[in-house]
Amino acid sequence: MSPEEFRAAAHQVVDWMADYLRDVREYPVLANPEPGALIDRLPAHGPETGEPMAAILDDFQKLIVPGLTHWNHPRFFAFFSITASGPGILGEMLSSVLNVQHMLWKASPAATELEQVTLGWLREWLKLPPEYFGLIHDTASTASMHAILAARELAAPEARISGEHPPLILYKSEHAHNSIDKGAVVVGVGAANIRHIATDSDFRMRPEALEASIEQDLAAGKKPFCVVATMGTTAMTSADPLEAILRIAGKHGLWVHVDAAYGGPAALLEELRPMFNGIEQADSMVLNPHKWLFTPFDLSILYTRRPEILRRSLALSEVPAYLRVAQHERALNYSEYTLPLGRRFRSLKLWFVLRYYGREGIVRVLREHVRLAQSLAGWIREDRRFELSAPVVFSLVCFRYKGSDQENRALFEQINASGEAFLSSTELNGKFVLRWAIGNMGTTEQDVRETWEMIRSFV
Amino acid sequence: MSPEEFRAAAHQVVDWMADYLRDVREYPVLANPEPGALIDRLPAHGPETGEPMAAILDDFQKLIVPGLTHWNHPRFFAFFSITASGPGILGEMLSSVLNVQHMLWKASPAATELEQVTLGWLREWLKLPPEYFGLIHDTASTASMHAILAARELAAPEARISGEHPPLILYKSEHAHNSIDKGAVVVGVGAANIRHIATDSDFRMRPEALEASIEQDLAAGKKPFCVVATMGTTAMTSADPLEAILRIAGKHGLWVHVDAAYGGPAALLEELRPMFNGIEQADSMVLNPHKWLFTPFDLSILYTRRPEILRRSLALSEVPAYLRVAQHERALNYSEYTLPLGRRFRSLKLWFVLRYYGREGIVRVLREHVRLAQSLAGWIREDRRFELSAPVVFSLVCFRYKGSDQENRALFEQINASGEAFLSSTELNGKFVLRWAIGNMGTTEQDVRETWEMIRSFV
Repeated sequence: MSPEEFRAAAHQVVDWMADYLRDVREYPVLANPEPGALIDRLPAHGPETGEPMAAILDDFQKLIVPGLTHWNHPRFFAFFSITASGPGILGEMLSSVLNVQHMLWKASPAATELEQVTLGWLREWLKLPPEYFGLIHDTASTASMHAILAARELAAPEARISGEHPPLILYKSEHAHNSIDKGAVVVGVGAANIRHIATDSDFRMRPEALEASIEQDLAAGKKPFCVVATMGTTAMTSADPLEAILRIAGKHGLWVHVDAAYGGPAALLEELRPMFNGIEQADSMVLNPHKWLFTPFDLSILYTRRPEILRRSLALSEVPAYLRVAQHERALNYSEYTLPLGRRFRSLKLWFVLRYYGREGIVRVLREHVRLAQSLAGWIREDRRFELSAPVVFSLVCFRYKGSDQENRALFEQINASGEAFLSSTELNGKFVLRWAIGNMGTTEQDVRETWEMIRSFV
Repeated sequence: MSPEEFRAAAHQVVDWMADYLRDVREYPVLANPEPGALIDRLPAHGPETGEPMAAILDDFQKLIVPGLTHWNHPRFFAFFSITASGPGILGEMLSSVLNVQHMLWKASPAATELEQVTLGWLREWLKLPPEYFGLIHDTASTASMHAILAARELAAPEARISGEHPPLILYKSEHAHNSIDKGAVVVGVGAANIRHIATDSDFRMRPEALEASIEQDLAAGKKPFCVVATMGTTAMTSADPLEAILRIAGKHGLWVHVDAAYGGPAALLEELRPMFNGIEQADSMVLNPHKWLFTPFDLSILYTRRPEILRRSLALSEVPAYLRVAQHERALNYSEYTLPLGRRFRSLKLWFVLRYYGREGIVRVLREHVRLAQSLAGWIREDRRFELSAPVVFSLVCFRYKGSDQENRALFEQINASGEAFLSSTELNGKFVLRWAIGNMGTTEQDVRETWEMIRSFV
């Protein structure tokens, strides 16, 4: 494709993209095709000869878009509500034409250094300690797996060489994300060695249960090595009592990993920052700008104050010739700290977002999301037919119709079949619960109000 | 950012992108700043208030671009030469505005089904068996780690539960990529249990050495579990003797993972396809469209004929409520097969590439790259001052000046300091060797010829 053919097609694509951002509310939020519908409509075999871009773009609009669930829609309230913001998209566009891969500093110095700078800015805004070393992963699952791997390295360095280690025990709350379990299983912890610590009535890890569990494992000759504290659990965004957990973990020398994939950006708000007190003692932390920081998917940050342990956890006795480079104290080779060798130039989009909105602009949006969640919680409280199912800690509201699970399920299906909004569900205290996440930059009070009125009209 | 502000900025950005594609040859291929230069030029603190997009784009051009190594430059001959093609970039642009995350089928049906369809087309073009199940990862490192994890699951399923397993032994050639070692170390194999099997004079794994190593480990009471065959090693793109390896592995019931991250697309060429004979017996295979299939970074494909083992390797006893969905035989939930929960809509850019070029168009470019590499090898043979250092199997040429390592190093530095081309280096048979990778879609015979003449003029 010649540069001029690209130029013409890309201008068309940009107009479609801007139209999409302008008209996104006209799309049904949730796609509802029959499974396999797209597979059946697309050719079973790839094209023998090339096709014109116009035909491809036409098929994109006619066949692909109708089968998508619109994550960038202001009434996407499911899972976590996320945003591909304008500046983030522009950064992603530039990143794609440059096609930089910065596994080593030398492979693209500015890509490596921009990652250092942007993560440094954000670290300061979040009031994280200056010694925190940051690096970008694709998802929190991958970032947390690396944290658990580093914890394994600290507790049982022999595992990296011999593959043998004592029974390593990992602790998380019963509401922590299952990516923690997956990461632990991958690095060889074993599902039976993951303790799902009980939570209190607000779904926060009970420190005394954590302590008892550690004591019990020690008495049984096992080796506790890692505690995961969650700041914003997936089901109901509870925040574990960080200081108490750090105190207990510190006593036993355990690695503390903080899963703040969703909740992390809340540390930008002074009124929510106290929840994070003590975090400078944590060994690692993950937060996802692709969740609640207006950055297109994917971009997950792992911060750690023990980069040398992380690096050692992946160290091999011999560095192959194709990766050997002159060492310079200011030339950081990020791939030494990650399983993936290749690295996309992801920091560019984050830099665009941080600069375009500035700290104040970001704080304003986050605060508005928290306010909208609180308003919604207030409206739910005012309607006696409904009840809140969990405290509203950040910008997620869990609630239910005061009726049977069956009635709530029917309500849930009705909301999502409307095409007007998309909520997800969870189960709390044995009951089916509706889960309403606020986090898209375009979401307005009117979106929340109208969706709430629609729900009320359904019961 | 309003849709109209986005539209205006995005049109500007597209013009910069098209100009970049048109003028990329005017940039020095290899950036050569002082380490830390960009860090020193950027503000130490993030902006308190938002900045205009014009200022950000201006800084992008003035500060970032000069510090980048240009991977999309037709004379980027280092590492592996890659391409962000026009259609691939257009797909990436659309993917970024949609911001779809298809961890579950329901989370965006068309994204999941397009991945199934495109990987099916490619599988057929590569003449891989129809039962191969495909899924997209970020990098080959991650894909291979999943293959090794599945192999662990097959050989020692107890590891997933108890964390305990017998000494599991993995085999790869001494020239296989170090991401295999990293992946093995991550899943708990232990570096001491990785056998680096000797190679023949063409750098191919010696089957008899593999067999002897397996026998020795069995006699020592260890548990061989996985062999990695490489189709296109990183240093010199040798291809291991697949059929012999499969025969030996089959005899001992070992999982065979084929690392065809670079070489895989060569299976599209009938003249190179015989190297892949037997692949239908392999348990898994990785190939990277972001390497030699003109797709912007990152997109790595893992194919496996044992998807149920892969799925089981990550299975937990309990699926959390927020991930529970109605099961439908045609609704594939890809995240059940991967450590990362989140999934970018990566198949879109691959679909654009496959359709725009078609099978014939792709074959034409691949074949031309192989021809250019062979021509270059011919020119090297004709100049008695130089020698080839390895057979040219795909589109990479390893060569050296017939002189000391010191002279070759000086030559290497001189080439890369020219800004005209970027080569990398490796070490073969104890000697410093220049490594010239061809793989960018824009590379012409003139690029290769002129760079070669420049090198000749340096000695």
